[in-house]
Amino acid sequence: MPIVQHDLLNVDLGIHDVVSRLSNANNAACVSMHRLVGGLSDGVDVVTVNNGRMSLQLLPTRGMGVWKGEVDGVPVRWNSPVERPVNPAFVDQMRRGGIGWLDGFNELICRCGLAWHGAPGTDTIVDENGKVVSEQFLPLHGRVANIPAHRVTATVDTDRLSVTGVVDEGCLFGGRLRLESTLTTMVDSAEFELTDVVTNLGAQPAEVEMLYHCNIGEPFLGEGSMCHTASSEVAPRNERAAEGLSMWNLYQGPTKGYAEQVYYTKAATDSSGEGVAVLCDANSERAFVVRFDTSTLPWFILWKNTQATEDGYVTGLEPGSSFPNPRGTERKGGRVISLAAGESVTFRLRFEVATERSRVRAILDEVTALQVATPRIVHDAPKAEWIP
Amino acid sequence: MPIVQHDLLNVDLGIHDVVSRLSNANNAACVSMHRLVGGLSDGVDVVTVNNGRMSLQLLPTRGMGVWKGEVDGVPVRWNSPVERPVNPAFVDQMRRGGIGWLDGFNELICRCGLAWHGAPGTDTIVDENGKVVSEQFLPLHGRVANIPAHRVTATVDTDRLSVTGVVDEGCLFGGRLRLESTLTTMVDSAEFELTDVVTNLGAQPAEVEMLYHCNIGEPFLGEGSMCHTASSEVAPRNERAAEGLSMWNLYQGPTKGYAEQVYYTKAATDSSGEGVAVLCDANSERAFVVRFDTSTLPWFILWKNTQATEDGYVTGLEPGSSFPNPRGTERKGGRVISLAAGESVTFRLRFEVATERSRVRAILDEVTALQVATPRIVHDAPKAEWIP
Amino acid sequence: MPIVQHDLLNVDLGIHDVVSRLSNANNAACVSMHRLVGGLSDGVDVVTVNNGRMSLQLLPTRGMGVWKGEVDGVPVRWNSPVERPVNPAFVDQMRRGGIGWLDGFNELICRCGLAWHGAPGTDTIVDENGKVVSEQFLPLHGRVANIPAHRVTATVDTDRLSVTGVVDEGCLFGGRLRLESTLTTMVDSAEFELTDVVTNLGAQPAEVEMLYHCNIGEPFLGEGSMCHTASSEVAPRNERAAEGLSMWNLYQGPTKGYAEQVYYTKAATDSSGEGVAVLCDANSERAFVVRFDTSTLPWFILWKNTQATEDGYVTGLEPGSSFPNPRGTERKGGRVISLAAGESVTFRLRFEVATERSRVRAILDEVTALQVATPRIVHDAPKAEWIP
Repeated sequence: MPIVQHDLLNVDLGIHDVVSRLSNANNAACVSMHRLVGGLSDGVDVVTVNNGRMSLQLLPTRGMGVWKGEVDGVPVRWNSPVERPVNPAFVDQMRRGGIGWLDGFNELICRCGLAWHGAPGTDTIVDENGKVVSEQFLPLHGRVANIPAHRVTATVDTDRLSVTGVVDEGCLFGGRLRLESTLTTMVDSAEFELTDVVTNLGAQPAEVEMLYHCNIGEPFLGEGSMCHTASSEVAPRNERAAEGLSMWNLYQGPTKGYAEQVYYTKAATDSSGEGVAVLCDANSERAFVVRFDTSTLPWFILWKNTQATEDGYVTGLEPGSSFPNPRGTERKGGRVISLAAGESVTFRLRFEVATERSRVRAILDEVTALQVATPRIVHDAPKAEWIP
Repeated sequence: MPIVQHDLLNVDLGIHDVVSRLSNANNAACVSMHRLVGGLSDGVDVVTVNNGRMSLQLLPTRGMGVWKGEVDGVPVRWNSPVERPVNPAFVDQMRRGGIGWLDGFNELICRCGLAWHGAPGTDTIVDENGKVVSEQFLPLHGRVANIPAHRVTATVDTDRLSVTGVVDEGCLFGGRLRLESTLTTMVDSAEFELTDVVTNLGAQPAEVEMLYHCNIGEPFLGEGSMCHTASSEVAPRNERAAEGLSMWNLYQGPTKGYAEQVYYTKAATDSSGEGVAVLCDANSERAFVVRFDTSTLPWFILWKNTQATEDGYVTGLEPGSSFPNPRGTERKGGRVISLAAGESVTFRLRFEVATERSRVRAILDEVTALQVATPRIVHDAPKAEWIP
Repeated sequence: MPIVQHDLLNVDLGIHDVVSRLSNANNAACVSMHRLVGGLSDGVDVVTVNNGRMSLQLLPTRGMGVWKGEVDGVPVRWNSPVERPVNPAFVDQMRRGGIGWLDGFNELICRCGLAWHGAPGTDTIVDENGKVVSEQFLPLHGRVANIPAHRVTATVDTDRLSVTGVVDEGCLFGGRLRLESTLTTMVDSAEFELTDVVTNLGAQPAEVEMLYHCNIGEPFLGEGSMCHTASSEVAPRNERAAEGLSMWNLYQGPTKGYAEQVYYTKAATDSSGEGVAVLCDANSERAFVVRFDTSTLPWFILWKNTQATEDGYVTGLEPGSSFPNPRGTERKGGRVISLAAGESVTFRLRFEVATERSRVRAILDEVTALQVATPRIVHDAPKAEWIP
C-alpha cells in the first residue's frame, strides 16, 4: 500500500490554480500552467498549450524551451537520459570542462544563446594592436536555456492560442540581452510558430548568437529515416562526419556506441524567405518539419546522434544564426550578429508535424522543388572558414 | 486578453500569509513578508518594512541585503541591468573567472564578506618557512550575499520597527561564521540603522572581511552630484582612477562607455566615533547619507560607475573593514580582522535619506566641519600599501 | 514580541499535507513528509520514519541521505558546522578546488557515488595505445548526495515501515545510473536496513563507486570511545594517519586543531557474508553498529575527525565498494565496479543502535569472535596498492 506518493509527473502544486487555465469559448482549446514538485524538476513551471489536435509543453523555467509535444496522438519528442525537465538551479554549466549544460538537456526545442552558443572554450578578444581586451571562458551552448522567464502571458481566442515569455540574460559589466519569445498555434492545427525577438537593452553594442536545437526521436527517427533539406553548401564538421558524408542525411537505427556526426550547411531560401528541413520516417508516413527565416537564421546544422535508445537516440535539426563553434571562430567568420544599443533581431520559425502520408508527400515535393532550384556544393572535408 | 499572468513583481505566493504582516497599534507602520514567484527571483523572500514615511525591501534570501527603498515618495535605489532579486540558487560565483557574483547584483545595500571580499584571486597562505599551508581561489566579494538567512524575526512597537536575520557561512574544514543582522527604524523616520554582529562559531581563529556596497542611482546621482566625505587620506585605486583624481568626488551624468573609477580613503572619525559619506544631488535638494562606526569600518571606498543608464548608472558608497583587494593583499596590510574562537565583531551603520533642502544643508555643514577638523593627504597615484 | 517567525525547523509548508502522513493501525508507527522553508534548506523535503522506538529523518532532496535519528531518546547524529540540510541548488561542488560538497555535508548517513567518490582530481582514461580517451575533473565524493530523488514512496504495515526513493545520475554523453534506495525498519526496533540497487540504464558499460559515509558524534563518540571492527588488513592512508596507528581505533575527546586521520581496511566477513563496525562509548553503554554485505562493500574506511565540538567532532564508519581515492587509483587497483548495460549492483547495510549495556556487550562479543577468526595484517605505512 503506497502512501506517500511524490512523483513530480503526477503532482500539481496548485499555486497557480487561480490563473492557471484558460479555455476558449467552445472549450476546444486551452492553455494551462502547473509546477512540478520533487527531484531535479522541483520548481519547474510547465505551460501546456492544447489546440484540440496538438498539445505542447513549454518550460518557462528553462528559457521558454519546448519540452515535448503530441499531435494526433503521436508523441513528438526524444528520450534523453535526463528524463524530466531540470530546474536550472541544479545545473552547473561549468561542470565537466564546461559541458554541464547537458545535465538539463532533454527538450524537443532547446534554444542555445543568447550571447553565444556552441562548443565550450575561451573567447579572447583583442584590439587592433593585438592587445587582449577581454578573455572569458564560455561554457557549452550559452545561458538562455538555464534562465527562467520572469514573465509569462497567454492568450486564447476562438481560433488562436499564444504564449509569450520574457527571458533576461545580463548583468553589470556583462551585457543586457532580452528574449521575448512567442509561440502561436491555431485551433486544430498541426503547426506552431516561434517568433523570438532578441533585444540589446544595453548602451553598448552586443553580440548575439542563436541556435535552435530541435531534437526528435522515434517514431519520426528510425532506420531509413531521412532529413530532407535544401542547401547551397554542405560540409562535414570533422573527420568523423566526413566518414559518413555519402549518407549524411540518412539515418541508422539505434546503434550502440555510435559517435555523433554533424554537418554544417548553408540553407537554401524559398520565395517567401524561408529555409526548410524535414525529418521523415522510412515509410514517408510521418514528418517533422521546421521552416526558418534565413535572413537571421542562414545556417542549418544537422546533428546525427543515433546512439542506442537508452543513451539517447536522437537527431537535431538546428537552424542557427551561426555555427556551434566557439564564438571566436564565428566572429572571425563574420557570422556573429552585432546589435547596436536598443537594436533587436527577430528569429522566426514554423514547425509542422505531418501524420498523414499525403501531407508528408506534399512537404517532400516542396523540399524537392527547392533542392532542384538550388545548386549545391558538397565538401568532402571540413570547410576551413566554417571550423575553428 | 492576457490570462496566464506570471509576473513575479505582482504575485504573492501566500505561503507566509498567516505570519506575514504585523502592524503597530495605530496601523501607521508594518512589517510584511512575501515570496516572489517565477524567473530568477523564484523563491526569494522579500520583507517590507514600512515606517509610515519610508519603506525598505529586505532580502533574507540574499544575505539580508536591502533591495531598495522609498522615502517621501522618492525612490532610493539604482537600476541594475539585473532588474529583479536573484535567488542564489541561480548564481554561480565561479562564472566568468570568478565574477559570477555580478549575476545577482542589484541591491541598494549589498554586503560583501564574511570571510573575504574584493577582487577574485587565489589566496595562498604560507607558514613561517614559506611552505604553502593553503591555496584557495576566492571569487568576487565573498559568499554572504548569496546565502539565505535561515531565521528572520521582526518586531513592531508603537514607534519602532526592526527585522533581524541570521546568516551562516561555513562548512566542515571551512570555518564557521555567523552574521546576525538587525535593521531598525523609527516610525515616520527617514533614517534606519544596521547592526551586524559577525561571530566566529568555530574553535579556530577566523578571518573576517566586510564591505557594505551601498549603491545609489538617480535622483540622488546625476550630473553635478557630489560625494561629500571626510578622510585623512585619499588615493586612487589604479591609473584609471588617478586620471580623475581632481574631480574624484564629483559625478558626470550617464556616460556611455565610462570605465569605473575607484578611490580608497581612510575615513575621518567624528566625536561619536562615526565616519560619514553623503551623496548629494547638484541642487542640494536630496541626499543619501551613510554613517559608520570607524572602529570596525575604518576605510571608505568610493566607486564611481557613471555608465549609461541602461548599463547601470550608479555610485557605491562603501564603508569597509578592509579594501576590496584580494585577501592576501589585505592580510599583508594588516587590515583583515581575526576573530578568536567565539569572538564577535560588530559593524554599525546609520543611513539617512534627506529630501528637503534645509536638512541637506545641515548634513553638508556637519561634513564640512569634520573635513575642516581633519588634515587630508591626497595621493596622486595608488598608494603601495593599499593595492596588490 | 516577535511576529514574523521564519525558522525552517518549525515551519511546515503544508504542500504535501494530503499525502504526508500515514500511520499503522494501532497508531504506533508512522511515516510523514514535510518541506523545509527558508535558508539554505529552502525546498528540502524531510521524510520522518517513526517506528515507535526510533525515529529517522530522511532527505529525498539530498539523494535519500539520512539526516539524523533518535533511539530511546538518544540522538544519533553529529553536529556539523553546517547545521541544517542544504538544498543542492545552493551547493557548488566545484568550489574550493572541487571540495564544495562539504558545503552541504551534515548527514548521519551520506552516500558518496554513484559514478565515483573520493578525493577530487582529474580522471584521465587512456586506451591501450596510451592515447587519452577522456579527461574529466571529478569533484569530491560524486554527485548522488546532491541529486534530489524524483520519486518517493512509503509503506506502513502493522509491523514494518519502509521508504523507497529513486535518484537518477546521468545525462547525454554522461552515463545513466539509477539508485533505487529502500530503508526498512520494524515497529519498536532499534535497527534499520538500507537496500540500494544501482542500475546502469545506459547501453554502454558504466563504472560505479559507492561509499557510505556514516557519521556519528556524541554521545557515541567521546574520549575513550572505540571503533571495533574485524579486518584482514589495515593500513594508514598517509603519514598523518601512520602517526596514530597504535591507537587507530581509539578516540580522543574533542581536540582543537586535530588533523583528520584515515585508515583503510579490508573487512572481515562473517558466516552470513557481512562485515561489521561498531562505535562504542568508553563505558560500553551505547553503540552504533553498521553491518554491510562485503560482496559489494569489501572495504571499510575509518575516518577519525575528533576536532573541537564547534568544528565538527565526528567519526566516519565507511563501508565502501572502493577506497576514497581519485577514481584512477581505484580503477588501477581493480576496485571500481563495472556494470554492463542494464546490469545492477546491490548494496546492503544494516544499522543498529544499542542503548543498553547488555546489548552492547553482546555486539562486542560478536565482533571479537570475528576478529579472533580473522588473521590481521597491520601495515605501519600506507600500502602502495591502496593509495594514489
